[in-house]
Amino acid sequence: ARSYNITLLPGDGIGPEVVAVAKDVLSLAGALEGKLIRVELRFQEKLMGGSALDATGVPLPDETLAAARDSDAVLLGAIGGYKWDNNEKHLKPETGLLQLRAGLRVFANLRPAAVLPQLVDASTLKKEVAEGVDIMVVRELTGGIYFGKPRGFGTNDSGEETGFNTEVYSASEIDRITRVAFEVARKRRGKLCSVDKANVLEASMLWRRRVTALASEFPDIELSHMYVDNAAMQLVRNPKQFDTIVTNNIFGDILSDEASMITGSIGMLPSASVGESGPGLFEPIHGSAPDIAGQDKANPLATILSAAMLLRYGLEEENAAKRIEAAVTETLNQGFRTGDIYSPGTTLVGCKRMGEEVLKTV
Amino acid sequence: ARSYNITLLPGDGIGPEVVAVAKDVLSLAGALEGKLIRVELRFQEKLMGGSALDATGVPLPDETLAAARDSDAVLLGAIGGYKWDNNEKHLKPETGLLQLRAGLRVFANLRPAAVLPQLVDASTLKKEVAEGVDIMVVRELTGGIYFGKPRGFGTNDSGEETGFNTEVYSASEIDRITRVAFEVARKRRGKLCSVDKANVLEASMLWRRRVTALASEFPDIELSHMYVDNAAMQLVRNPKQFDTIVTNNIFGDILSDEASMITGSIGMLPSASVGESGPGLFEPIHGSAPDIAGQDKANPLATILSAAMLLRYGLEEENAAKRIEAAVTETLNQGFRTGDIYSPGTTLVGCKRMGEEVLKTV
Ligand SMILES: CC(C)[C@H](C(=O)O)[C@@H](O)C(=O)O
Ligand SMILES: CC(C)[C@H](C(=O)O)[C@@H](O)C(=O)O
Repeated sequence: ARSYNITLLPGDGIGPEVVAVAKDVLSLAGALEGKLIRVELRFQEKLMGGSALDATGVPLPDETLAAARDSDAVLLGAIGGYKWDNNEKHLKPETGLLQLRAGLRVFANLRPAAVLPQLVDASTLKKEVAEGVDIMVVRELTGGIYFGKPRGFGTNDSGEETGFNTEVYSASEIDRITRVAFEVARKRRGKLCSVDKANVLEASMLWRRRVTALASEFPDIELSHMYVDNAAMQLVRNPKQFDTIVTNNIFGDILSDEASMITGSIGMLPSASVGESGPGLFEPIHGSAPDIAGQDKANPLATILSAAMLLRYGLEEENAAKRIEAAVTETLNQGFRTGDIYSPGTTLVGCKRMGEEVLKTV
Repeated sequence: ARSYNITLLPGDGIGPEVVAVAKDVLSLAGALEGKLIRVELRFQEKLMGGSALDATGVPLPDETLAAARDSDAVLLGAIGGYKWDNNEKHLKPETGLLQLRAGLRVFANLRPAAVLPQLVDASTLKKEVAEGVDIMVVRELTGGIYFGKPRGFGTNDSGEETGFNTEVYSASEIDRITRVAFEVARKRRGKLCSVDKANVLEASMLWRRRVTALASEFPDIELSHMYVDNAAMQLVRNPKQFDTIVTNNIFGDILSDEASMITGSIGMLPSASVGESGPGLFEPIHGSAPDIAGQDKANPLATILSAAMLLRYGLEEENAAKRIEAAVTETLNQGFRTGDIYSPGTTLVGCKRMGEEVLKTV
């Protein structure tokens, strides 16, 4: 048997609802594998984010990080909420997430943004601009200004308060994310666009230099460079020009969210964060949506698709991953929609019911 | 007589073409003022950007900066081009622009992004999403990661090369741009959205704290805060929710370009950069477009509208500013279009002809 330990981190808001549904889908997809060899998925649930803060006083308890590290893959729901918004930095749910990413060393965040034919009308972009968009943003996740030191508050020469952060990348940090991105592009349409601000920032100049140098290892990939301000424009002007995008942590935060909104349905979008080795972290890109939490209204598809990424990139169970993705497509084809993607003529369902429909087709 | 000295910096690519046209429009608008008092505009042209590099070896000659400083306002065309793209940092046209902004201390960059009824189809967004969009991005322009120190290249503990920059803001830098933004919002629809990444960055935490503190001085303005990743999404999802946006230098670079592409016609968009006192800097937001330079194809309207901003924000000649804006609207109503905004049923014209048509209606 192939047996895997999966840590579930339901988190806050709608997190528990969508993770519960995704867990059932994962279980079934696993159980249906193994014509030759049995696939066994074992789950443990841990506290993380605001719920961890309330229960233990910290957003990422040591026990949670240790359990995550010891497992084969981690599935996260969502974290955060108004309740903890004004907490000091080390007591913010977001800080727990950054600690988890750093603790698992998952430096490569893969964020697909594809416009599904069934949902092309959900995009605010004109149909001819939106249809066929299929972008993968590869975002560096454990470096740059998110983690750079020095950082903090200080006093300048005039005795005034300052706030400061450091954007810093080393050659090897750039090289390893770039290699991941070239490999990803190779499995897609063979085009990689590296986004930076090399006309202004030294950190970006080094970025561009290293990316350019690595290109000779991937002669089959068409590499281009773009400034981040232009990339933010081009995503709106003609998103179809992009295949794979690679960029730093903060630009990736901004551009991957912009790209996902191009699809019009962020309730559909998964993400995978992986490192050199060790468990990967899989999570929907949407937030904890406290306003609809506990009302069975959340769209579980992003988390279900994150579970598919978990199977593919985390456990190398490609078959089971495909099975889930096909089930999601089929469920959409049958016309089932949660409120966020509802349109007249389709069938409005809640979070649980959407899960049941996916289970039926898995 | 009111007499003003205006420094023209045509720059590179299409810069000289669009500045020449805008100069004529400025002259005429000035000449038509002064029923009571004569308005006199005197122009001097200086080198800047790649053309300055070629002629003098630096992107911003001392003479240019001195002339700009001594004048009442500066009108810039565009800078940059493939030719200088691989120059070392201190020999890049962009570096000259940053030096000019710093030298003139123009810390507040005002970037309107409005969808004109005549050009609503130019947007890639659906008509119902695009029409009526009218956003002003107030971007901090002389601080943050663009200018923060330390910056450069170094070696880390493992002996590897690093590239680094510092994002830093002082209380007074935040306060002065925030005040400008509140004042701008007051003259518009009374809504200000401050964009930051205060869930991660200390520089943003100070930003949010200072902006929040200043709100009590502007009780008539509705203030909100948004994370930059969410703002990048919301601009695509529902740009009409925004009135005035205030943000730091790098986020402003990205978001103002994204906002301008929402309008679909960046050849139409002006910008103004102003300081506490001294001459302001006025420039179209588009680049130097080397591929169409010298072909009389450029759209001069962004530069003409920058000249209107120069009259309004630089010289307090509101009447003349309105006269130019009305002339641009009238010229569009008459159906004249350059290639970038052409659509069937309108009259395709070149840069010069577009200028002549505007002159006729000024
Ligand atoms: C919650 C926040 C810290 C996080 C980030 O900025 O990385 C989020 O925006 C994301 O993209 O996963
Ligand atoms: C040319 C470049 C240095 C500049 C900037 O980043 O500020 C440009 O993108 C702008 O927005 O004016």
